[in-house]
Amino acid sequence: MLLDSLIDKATQFERMTVAVAAAEDEEVIEAIIGALKQDLAKFLLFGDERKILRLIKEKSPAFEKDERLSIVHAESEISAAENAVRSVSNNEASVLMKGNIPTAVLLKAVLNKEYGLRAGSVLSHTAVFEVPGFDRFTIITDAGMNIAPDLEQKAQIVKNAVSIARAIGIENPKVAPLAAVEVINPAMQATMDAAALTMMNRHGQINGCVIDGPLALDNAVSSLAAEHKGIKSEVAGKADILLVPTIEVGNTLYKSLIYFANAKVGAVIAGAKAPIVLTSRADSAQSKLYSLALAICSVSK
Amino acid sequence: MLLDSLIDKATQFERMTVAVAAAEDEEVIEAIIGALKQDLAKFLLFGDERKILRLIKEKSPAFEKDERLSIVHAESEISAAENAVRSVSNNEASVLMKGNIPTAVLLKAVLNKEYGLRAGSVLSHTAVFEVPGFDRFTIITDAGMNIAPDLEQKAQIVKNAVSIARAIGIENPKVAPLAAVEVINPAMQATMDAAALTMMNRHGQINGCVIDGPLALDNAVSSLAAEHKGIKSEVAGKADILLVPTIEVGNTLYKSLIYFANAKVGAVIAGAKAPIVLTSRADSAQSKLYSLALAICSVSK
Repeated sequence: MLLDSLIDKATQFERMTVAVAAAEDEEVIEAIIGALKQDLAKFLLFGDERKILRLIKEKSPAFEKDERLSIVHAESEISAAENAVRSVSNNEASVLMKGNIPTAVLLKAVLNKEYGLRAGSVLSHTAVFEVPGFDRFTIITDAGMNIAPDLEQKAQIVKNAVSIARAIGIENPKVAPLAAVEVINPAMQATMDAAALTMMNRHGQINGCVIDGPLALDNAVSSLAAEHKGIKSEVAGKADILLVPTIEVGNTLYKSLIYFANAKVGAVIAGAKAPIVLTSRADSAQSKLYSLALAICSVSK
Repeated sequence: MLLDSLIDKATQFERMTVAVAAAEDEEVIEAIIGALKQDLAKFLLFGDERKILRLIKEKSPAFEKDERLSIVHAESEISAAENAVRSVSNNEASVLMKGNIPTAVLLKAVLNKEYGLRAGSVLSHTAVFEVPGFDRFTIITDAGMNIAPDLEQKAQIVKNAVSIARAIGIENPKVAPLAAVEVINPAMQATMDAAALTMMNRHGQINGCVIDGPLALDNAVSSLAAEHKGIKSEVAGKADILLVPTIEVGNTLYKSLIYFANAKVGAVIAGAKAPIVLTSRADSAQSKLYSLALAICSVSK
């Protein structure tokens, strides 16, 4: 599957609004202009109005008076974060996007009990990859937020990823909890949790997907490898979602796909009332666009 | 760098002897015949003589009476393992190779206090990758033996990998202890250990290499990524050795390179008096050959 198909899909919905917290940033403005060129969304830009206007003028003066852009001045980054989050709570916007503020500042507003966007118990990073040579998306979670999730957190991370998978058209996603081996070994917590998650799925505690693990990466993604090893599983060789045991596994796999396998990616933070786009400076412009498209598709599920 | 260059290098040495523990296995015999075709080594095959002879005859009758093959009958797999290890202790062979026995059985013989091959404190899996698009080898350790090594074990794993790196011509290898981030965070043990290893290198406790970390994978292997993030480091973007924090990271990265990035690999167990080749059924014939060549180069350092 191609990530470009998410952009096509996102443009077919009625135009949604993305609230950007602290939009006064060169790369954020570039991403927004890129999205406007594809007519992906409308934007509500919270932050330093003068700086935002200047950046738009510098980058692409044609968009200075674009009706799809509204700017709401904020005196500080905290106030930009709060007001962006409130605009989503109030249904003025459907997607939240981080601008030029630390992630912690944005998440504090997201988790605010009064006006925040809390839904389930865990926010989690969910990344959708287009890997050259693979005819399906590969969803990896959590490569960016939860350091060493326990079983309860892993269950919620899977649920969050399943909702994203369904939003992009994978009806009953196959979930592989990854480990280094397929045997259950109490010295390897990843294998214990994988076995527990598999049984939680069979006993109706995690629904809308098929979980089977532990699986090592080869047997999760390659039917040939799984066959060669004699593994019989509905998930082996066909995993849509790879649940990693720790942030180190996720981060390393994520970057291996980008830097060694030339994969493309879009990612959102799932688990709040609205999808959150947390692009970082290291992301390519294309990746930022894919993340926005993924977020928009995730709203309209 | 191409792994084929290791085969060229290995064939330039005086022909060495590889002791194979329990050679009565189709894929092991195939690997041995492949090595003989390249004139990589001589082989001392321990195991069930009749089965071994039958397999050679089936696979490639031309090698049935090859003078580079000697068979020593063993009544059991334990005795095959013991005798293969003894032949290395006695300097009849320079490399040990696992055949059709469980890894645990072979390692028990390797670790025997009387005739075993103990050297340093830790045996570790060291894999040398040829990644398409990269002009240097990428060495990953430990993706196969140590589950969650502590700092002392990590130090030894690095030393083992450095000896392999030097054996294949990387004089002063750059070592990146991987983590999910570059900041030191006590909630992430990988970052703490990476910082400690870096300082152990600066204070002369780990020599013959340059260690700098923690580094996330992107900043370890891509100069562009490191530059973009403003990271100043002798290792960033140019790492020869990637030290992974846990077996899950190593195993997943290893398989990501094979299955997503079409990389090639050869691997040995380092840290004993002789290199040990532990090929598995899942390895390609080519990978088994590279592992043998890597082992031979590691002896002749």
